Amino acid sequence: MSTQRDRAERLRQLHLGPRLLVLPNAWDVASAKVIEAVGASAVATSSAGVAYALGYPDGQRISREEMLDMVRRIAAAVQVPVSADVEAGYGDTEEAASATARAVVAAGAVGMNLEDSGESGELLALDLQLARIRAVRSASEAAGVPLVLNARTDAFAARALAGEARVGEAVRRGNAFLAAGADCVFVPFVSDQEIIARLAREIRGPLNILASPASPPLGDLERIGVRRVSVGSTIARAAYGLARSSAVELLRGRYPDLASAIPYAELQALLASRR
Amino acid sequence: MSTQRDRAERLRQLHLGPRLLVLPNAWDVASAKVIEAVGASAVATSSAGVAYALGYPDGQRISREEMLDMVRRIAAAVQVPVSADVEAGYGDTEEAASATARAVVAAGAVGMNLEDSGESGELLALDLQLARIRAVRSASEAAGVPLVLNARTDAFAARALAGEARVGEAVRRGNAFLAAGADCVFVPFVSDQEIIARLAREIRGPLNILASPASPPLGDLERIGVRRVSVGSTIARAAYGLARSSAVELLRGRYPDLASAIPYAELQALLASRR
Repeated sequence: MSTQRDRAERLRQLHLGPRLLVLPNAWDVASAKVIEAVGASAVATSSAGVAYALGYPDGQRISREEMLDMVRRIAAAVQVPVSADVEAGYGDTEEAASATARAVVAAGAVGMNLEDSGESGELLALDLQLARIRAVRSASEAAGVPLVLNARTDAFAARALAGEARVGEAVRRGNAFLAAGADCVFVPFVSDQEIIARLAREIRGPLNILASPASPPLGDLERIGVRRVSVGSTIARAAYGLARSSAVELLRGRYPDLASAIPYAELQALLASRR
Repeated sequence: MSTQRDRAERLRQLHLGPRLLVLPNAWDVASAKVIEAVGASAVATSSAGVAYALGYPDGQRISREEMLDMVRRIAAAVQVPVSADVEAGYGDTEEAASATARAVVAAGAVGMNLEDSGESGELLALDLQLARIRAVRSASEAAGVPLVLNARTDAFAARALAGEARVGEAVRRGNAFLAAGADCVFVPFVSDQEIIARLAREIRGPLNILASPASPPLGDLERIGVRRVSVGSTIARAAYGLARSSAVELLRGRYPDLASAIPYAELQALLASRR
């Protein structure tokens, strides 16, 4: 059985190419188990998905403890490395980032996201975010597991920025994050192939893009230098969409087409297998 | 705002016909919220679905506390009455049934299922199950909320019974359950229309059938006297099937068709609305 440090190292290696690391995000244990079972080399959680499952909207309305409790369940159930989406670390301070990093290690995960959107919804000052990144590095190393830190910048969602300024800010922040110890830079909310290619060229480390129907095919993302692709809460939201359409059909008196359901015996066996 | 006792009474009324009570089972908060949002008059949980989400196979491998924690989250989030699937009560004794009933009330639910399959997988002796049903009645009434008790018999899954003996045992148990204080009799694993019609005629109280693609259309179930239909873990297993097929597509390099996903803003708004 691999140690948590081994799994952290394996996850780090998966960012070094040449193949794109594809992460269909999970939101609970069963989703993580099926994603692992079909060959994902790591499981990344969706913070929005976990929040929805447990009864909160996205955006740090859930507590750190509840978010990490689901991460703990997932990490105990799968063999592949687990990366935890822990939003902006449940507080804007260095101390919050350190506490979250320690909780991620304690939960058994080996990677974490850290956003640079503060509780106000605005981008945190870069100096503060760099201090928080260093805090995650030192706290996780002190806890014995050098977490793979996926440092997210919300430059493309910043109301104070537009167009070219967003690209420049994402590059500036991304490179500063890497210099402060991040392993990967996550730039969501960008789908234009030219802009993504520029981010991949100018950010001097692994780049994570949030895929959507509007983004280039995954093969093109790999070719232009993207190292990691995730999908956020989309699969979770599709699962709840299926729950909704199934309920609509039943309430209209028709049994819905649920032929794609995983057979009971198969899901029983999958959930009975533990790391 | 309605009291928990009011919601129990509303759920009880929903069993009295003439309309069929249709329960598309939920397994976490978001699934419960979308099922309520499309017009379900009550939310029933699937114990298997909750177990899968939290990392266990079905069949009382999850603890009572973890099962009821999810029920509590659901009951806090929806306005309609919530019925908790609590398997066989997490223990074969009267005391276990009482403790589970108190925990269901404390979680904010107003109904519960109680199975007559014991921890051995065999049917519990009828006298014991009747004592357990009376224990649920008295414990929930002492706790201030007369729970709507959906008493399940697994006669159609009993290895020691076959054919006609299963029908007879389901009728015998069902009527005894009602006499002991159950509000509804749940007979899963039967899809033959003639047999269901006979159960509906011979069981002298509301009958719950587990619908499947093999069972008669819901309109026919209503017509032959069934009062409640649920679907167990099927919707949850379909949601995990969608997670699996989405992951397969992504890992093959194709963005999956997730057009049925509930838009982010819509799910945010739904989860932000609380009872």
